[in-house]
Amino acid sequence: MRATLMYGAGDVRVETVPDPIIQQPTDAIVRVVAGCICGSDLWPYASKPASEHGSRMGHEFVGIVEELGGDVVGLATGDFVIAPFVASDGTCDFCREGLQTSCRHGEHWGSPGDGGQGEFVRVPQAAGTLVVVPAGFDEALIPSLLSLSDVMCTGYHAAKKAHILPGQSVTVIGDGAVGLSAVLSAKLLGAGQVILMGRHQARTDLGRRFGATDVVAERGEEGIAKVKELTGGDGTHVVLEAVGLKSAIETAIAVVRDGGVISRVGAPQFGEVPLGFPEFMRNITLTGGVAPARAYIDELLPLVLDGTIEPGKVFDRTVGFDEVAAGYRAMADREALKVLIRP
Amino acid sequence: MRATLMYGAGDVRVETVPDPIIQQPTDAIVRVVAGCICGSDLWPYASKPASEHGSRMGHEFVGIVEELGGDVVGLATGDFVIAPFVASDGTCDFCREGLQTSCRHGEHWGSPGDGGQGEFVRVPQAAGTLVVVPAGFDEALIPSLLSLSDVMCTGYHAAKKAHILPGQSVTVIGDGAVGLSAVLSAKLLGAGQVILMGRHQARTDLGRRFGATDVVAERGEEGIAKVKELTGGDGTHVVLEAVGLKSAIETAIAVVRDGGVISRVGAPQFGEVPLGFPEFMRNITLTGGVAPARAYIDELLPLVLDGTIEPGKVFDRTVGFDEVAAGYRAMADREALKVLIRP
Repeated sequence: MRATLMYGAGDVRVETVPDPIIQQPTDAIVRVVAGCICGSDLWPYASKPASEHGSRMGHEFVGIVEELGGDVVGLATGDFVIAPFVASDGTCDFCREGLQTSCRHGEHWGSPGDGGQGEFVRVPQAAGTLVVVPAGFDEALIPSLLSLSDVMCTGYHAAKKAHILPGQSVTVIGDGAVGLSAVLSAKLLGAGQVILMGRHQARTDLGRRFGATDVVAERGEEGIAKVKELTGGDGTHVVLEAVGLKSAIETAIAVVRDGGVISRVGAPQFGEVPLGFPEFMRNITLTGGVAPARAYIDELLPLVLDGTIEPGKVFDRTVGFDEVAAGYRAMADREALKVLIRP
Repeated sequence: MRATLMYGAGDVRVETVPDPIIQQPTDAIVRVVAGCICGSDLWPYASKPASEHGSRMGHEFVGIVEELGGDVVGLATGDFVIAPFVASDGTCDFCREGLQTSCRHGEHWGSPGDGGQGEFVRVPQAAGTLVVVPAGFDEALIPSLLSLSDVMCTGYHAAKKAHILPGQSVTVIGDGAVGLSAVLSAKLLGAGQVILMGRHQARTDLGRRFGATDVVAERGEEGIAKVKELTGGDGTHVVLEAVGLKSAIETAIAVVRDGGVISRVGAPQFGEVPLGFPEFMRNITLTGGVAPARAYIDELLPLVLDGTIEPGKVFDRTVGFDEVAAGYRAMADREALKVLIRP
């Protein structure tokens, strides 16, 4: 089969790799209908050291079940399924608590296993991992269903971990696909004022359609001053941080209201967070983390199916396997917001 | 009147200072029945640069209302009152939300104002700040009522901010008065296993009486290994951090279970917290901060009055004004757990 590999920064290739086979009775083989490129793929795309051995890429996909191991229950060949970005058994204590990212038998996609940017994927712990779309295959819903693999659930995780109360004010830092999903999620939970910090107008325009009431294009001290101005000097009850840079966390700390919550879903590119004495005196909470997407699909899928939300709008480009490398470039250059891949 | 002043590290003196007078119509004058020395007073006692001008000390006291400004409602002269460790108006948005430490008219005790380690205190925002003991003066209850000024409410704040669920496992780091109050608070909220990390046996013995199920005397890597061993390798759902040193926060991060909460009430003696990528992948939450004691007194006072809890057991020494300096020394040398001062 064909699959995407990354050999180093800026070096992405689609090559022929072995077809996956059932290895464990709990496995499934899924034919990928659509995968995509994640903002988190851009970190290695910017900095991965060159290597002779490529890494299999992609952790988001929807597809059709082709084959099932003998122990898999609740799935049938032909099912149209969503794969959250971590495989989980669905039965351990962490899974039952809704923290499937800490599953005791959890596995991440990609090397040495298959990735979502390929034709087929061997899915470990298939019964716990895959979610069947009850309405079956629907071409028009592919982008929104695919967004439930990661970005929409990641934005929703940020909002849920912040325990947003109806009417509360929220700042979202970052106008990437996760940030925009966080805007949509904050509105779903009843947020009042939602301030989106981002400077790409096409993206912030989509943010407004998702529910942002204000957009702040400025960064750093200027951006902080603007959010303060929009909130009577206090900052917002909640900040959803969807970037992962230290500067974003520093902005979050500066714009959160006393007693407020910073919920982060941007993978941290730093080791320490400035939460010392001043933040202690202000009772600032830092929460969030990698999103257990599996925990939220059951809740969000009906809203996608009935048209309440359309998170798939974050995809603004679709490529075939011959254009995957160009898709990475376009996302890295901020020409594309999020790139969908059709094998 | 006589009051305690600190002139520098190790230099505490009781001197004559001007009697307080009503300055604002929202003020009250309270005659101190009992004050005390706080663990947080030990930070300046260890490191404050010498100065010609002493700082007025003490932020915890109970006393009798002597005089009231014209605008004070809900209080009468002769009332026996508890003063939380920050003055607050009781009417602003932060006070109504239960975050009186961020009150828009909040004031801290001590220089240039009066402190709790003196004979009298001018109390700003008296109607919002002071809580009347409905049963009136009771000599036997003084220690427990005084603990509601700070330590018991601070331990309770840690437990409340962690949203401890019945049956959850909790580690408490620190066997000082706040740590022991955190143990008592965790049990009040229904915690199951409560592991107290501390190495002073008289204190950890009191911790067991307050509800600790396990005591870990080891520190650092050894202590971490012990907590892991007691929790099947996972760590506890909640960690209440009552020390304020970076090593304590590092221990907290190491012993908290994936998806768990670290709630800190030790005043941070550091600027940055190591909450980078590994902690992000584990979905660790950091919460807590300075405790709005006023928010919890209404809830805890009935439990003190009916004998459900006896948080005043943390006081193991009582001194008069002639022994305040010795009281500081005893606490700094860990000879006394917490020192009560009777003017």
